[in-house]
Amino acid sequence: MQEQYEELKRRLMEVNDLQSANSLLGWDQATYMPAKGAVARGRQIATLSRLAQEKFTAPAIGHLLDDLEKYDLPYDSDEASLIRVTRRLYERAIKVPPEFTAKAAAHTTEAYSIWAKARPENDFATVQPYLEKTLDLSIEFANFFPDYDHIADPLIDGSDYGMKAESIRQIFSELREQLVPIAKAINEQAPADDSCLRKFYPVDKQQEFGEYVIQQFGYDFERGRQDKTHHPFMTKFSLNDVRITTRFQEHFLGESLGSTMHEAGHALYELGINQDYEGTPLARGASAGVHESQSRLWENVIGRSRPFWEHFYPLLQETFPDQLNDVDLDAFHRAFNKVENSLIRTDADEVTYNLHVMIRFDLELQMLEGELAIKDLPEAWHARYDSDLGIHAPSDVDGALQDVHWYAGFIGGAFQGYTLGNIMSGQFYEAALKAHPGIPTDISRGEFGKLHNWLKDNIYQHGRKYTPDELIERVTGKPLTIEPYINYLRTKYGELYSL
Amino acid sequence: MQEQYEELKRRLMEVNDLQSANSLLGWDQATYMPAKGAVARGRQIATLSRLAQEKFTAPAIGHLLDDLEKYDLPYDSDEASLIRVTRRLYERAIKVPPEFTAKAAAHTTEAYSIWAKARPENDFATVQPYLEKTLDLSIEFANFFPDYDHIADPLIDGSDYGMKAESIRQIFSELREQLVPIAKAINEQAPADDSCLRKFYPVDKQQEFGEYVIQQFGYDFERGRQDKTHHPFMTKFSLNDVRITTRFQEHFLGESLGSTMHEAGHALYELGINQDYEGTPLARGASAGVHESQSRLWENVIGRSRPFWEHFYPLLQETFPDQLNDVDLDAFHRAFNKVENSLIRTDADEVTYNLHVMIRFDLELQMLEGELAIKDLPEAWHARYDSDLGIHAPSDVDGALQDVHWYAGFIGGAFQGYTLGNIMSGQFYEAALKAHPGIPTDISRGEFGKLHNWLKDNIYQHGRKYTPDELIERVTGKPLTIEPYINYLRTKYGELYSL
Repeated sequence: MQEQYEELKRRLMEVNDLQSANSLLGWDQATYMPAKGAVARGRQIATLSRLAQEKFTAPAIGHLLDDLEKYDLPYDSDEASLIRVTRRLYERAIKVPPEFTAKAAAHTTEAYSIWAKARPENDFATVQPYLEKTLDLSIEFANFFPDYDHIADPLIDGSDYGMKAESIRQIFSELREQLVPIAKAINEQAPADDSCLRKFYPVDKQQEFGEYVIQQFGYDFERGRQDKTHHPFMTKFSLNDVRITTRFQEHFLGESLGSTMHEAGHALYELGINQDYEGTPLARGASAGVHESQSRLWENVIGRSRPFWEHFYPLLQETFPDQLNDVDLDAFHRAFNKVENSLIRTDADEVTYNLHVMIRFDLELQMLEGELAIKDLPEAWHARYDSDLGIHAPSDVDGALQDVHWYAGFIGGAFQGYTLGNIMSGQFYEAALKAHPGIPTDISRGEFGKLHNWLKDNIYQHGRKYTPDELIERVTGKPLTIEPYINYLRTKYGELYSL
Repeated sequence: MQEQYEELKRRLMEVNDLQSANSLLGWDQATYMPAKGAVARGRQIATLSRLAQEKFTAPAIGHLLDDLEKYDLPYDSDEASLIRVTRRLYERAIKVPPEFTAKAAAHTTEAYSIWAKARPENDFATVQPYLEKTLDLSIEFANFFPDYDHIADPLIDGSDYGMKAESIRQIFSELREQLVPIAKAINEQAPADDSCLRKFYPVDKQQEFGEYVIQQFGYDFERGRQDKTHHPFMTKFSLNDVRITTRFQEHFLGESLGSTMHEAGHALYELGINQDYEGTPLARGASAGVHESQSRLWENVIGRSRPFWEHFYPLLQETFPDQLNDVDLDAFHRAFNKVENSLIRTDADEVTYNLHVMIRFDLELQMLEGELAIKDLPEAWHARYDSDLGIHAPSDVDGALQDVHWYAGFIGGAFQGYTLGNIMSGQFYEAALKAHPGIPTDISRGEFGKLHNWLKDNIYQHGRKYTPDELIERVTGKPLTIEPYINYLRTKYGELYSL
């Protein structure tokens, strides 16, 4: 068996090296590439994607898996896990004909460039036929996996393996029932004053402070770095080179600090994966949702918590004395956790954020079910914002044209991970606190080792060994449940807003 | 034919995309990669090199060439040139067994790391067995091409196609005869005072000035950028993304300005190649020598010339008033062209630089001929520096351990391009002046368009279409000759040192 197993790993490593090189092509495109390098870069990325796909779907990999599956290995062993996860990804990859992948990629490239131009012009009519084709392609894709319960399931599988549209719909509905009254109660009070965040904050000082914070979290600048991009992201070139990006606003402190902590959360997850998995499909996070649980945990549950700021606020004041010396900790903490119903998902606070996500998730399902035609999407969007958040976008710019997702990929599977991640962040953190009740006290001293180690031991090291459902059950002893997350929100915002 | 030709180009483009991605992996390694990313990066670079090599040596490429060679196409046509150059590279590639390439690459990696440690410790004994194996491998490599006149020819072919050891030896010997008395005459005079270059020059101002200069040359920052690295280099990811790097010394102005102009010269060459050649083997410079002719032309022939500084010196004084206001143009120009016999090739001036190169070239040939054993290399090195430059390195650190080349590749073909390039720079510039006698006047006004366009029309656009010998003949009407270069040096240094 050893020989076949090594041969499988050798082939997977080759695929991985192509994918890693491709990630670097993408990182460079977003960070340092000169403008006119774009055309060749697009072609290079397409070539490497195709080669990686060809290598991964080679029949030889299928034969190796056939042979290796004959051995009786413990489910939890690295070997069994590598074989199991590779099989799953392999079956998913070979069921989609290369011609479809090429057709879909070409359409996506075109749809994206049409959207990028149409959005600032509030021109939904122009994108409509493209989005209709995207919907057709999404349905065509789903039907390569005809054994689904819901047509969205194969699309959801790509980012949140094993999660089902119906169970997500159910849990999201429970969550909405709890969130809406909290948001409503907060909105009936005077809004938090966040003017202290909206002074002039020099970019270099913001960067210095943000990077200091994430180093305390445990982010190692010998195994990563932070650069500036238009949209923040995390990317990985190996388990020892996991980089993040951020963006700065000179007149809003919340932007870069939030995004730095968020992306560092994603990075800590990848950096914590068992080094033995390097170059294999196990060497990445379990799912979009589990990944988001870590970015949101470090950004929100930790980075916007009261104990965190007890330690860091004096340092922040030292960094920005003119801006903050007359602002006390309570006022700052309240400002940094301001809740308000707003139009833009990415700018939304912890309480209302999930309402944005659930609207998109529901609309995706309705489109895939044939219950909502693309031409009716803009009105359906406005109707849901009216009913769920009580606000109405003045145009489609911040409505159906708002997010890039449907214009840069399939309809289906694009949004649920954000809210699944929030729910998990509550559930995981509750488990961490149960194991180490002293964590908040540590945090109020700027110490994160206990939490970080618990996350590494229980979540990070496993990479993609377990499905999201398996991981949640292993770590918390329960299936996915909203209770800890709702308790977390009620406690935190109950205190902040005296609910 | 069209179909086969397109299929050949499609396959070559795929190879090119892998090589370009690999160049980016290398650029990132030298610029921004965090320290601990090194291990995986080495593996990724090896994987992409191997895949590019596999794709390029595929029998299908040979068959396409067989078919395409049946058509009668004009020698100068792009189609015939692409087929001809691809055939040459293909034959070179397939004659070397992949196992040899892998063995040589593994040895080189090891030899390099041994050298990097041994050099600071002046420990030639430790590198000796590695260098002996390098010599064996170099000879083994040469013998894959048994039709050579001199055993170094196949090694020289890799960087300076068509040039032969014997004819290079001949032209170098003529050059030495001319150079030695010039260097001697200069060294008998009082050395130039370059203390004005050795004041404190803030790095950001140096960078700003250097980038301003190369923009005036015609370097387009929408098609390139400059970053900092330990060793300066030029690299290309496409014909519209050609980057350079430099290094700064806070207490020596000559370092970054010289290297910025030098690397920009390489970049202007690549940026000037016919855009129709993108992604094919024609889309790069004709040879190491021709490339060096352009870096040395822009750095030295232009960037250290009197007309150049007539225009730029007032701007440099404005940038560094405290350092330069009491230094007049003559004194600065003399300082920037200081000649002295020194130990380090890369720091050498225009007059003595070639003496360093010729020593290495001769030693390479002697080693390959079996006339010089590796164990005797350190003494042979010292002996040549004694006789040619009249100086003796205190140890092997600046002797046989000085340059990375033999420790990071083969022995043979590594050095001749530097001096061939210098010789060509004189010959090309003479031709440019013949076509446009007003070029020096333009330069004294900071205008480089006429020269840059002449270089594009006569050299750059052709990429690798012509061999170095063909190109020299086409551009200057003569074979390679040292006369223009010697005239250039005599005139310039005759004035500077009143020879």
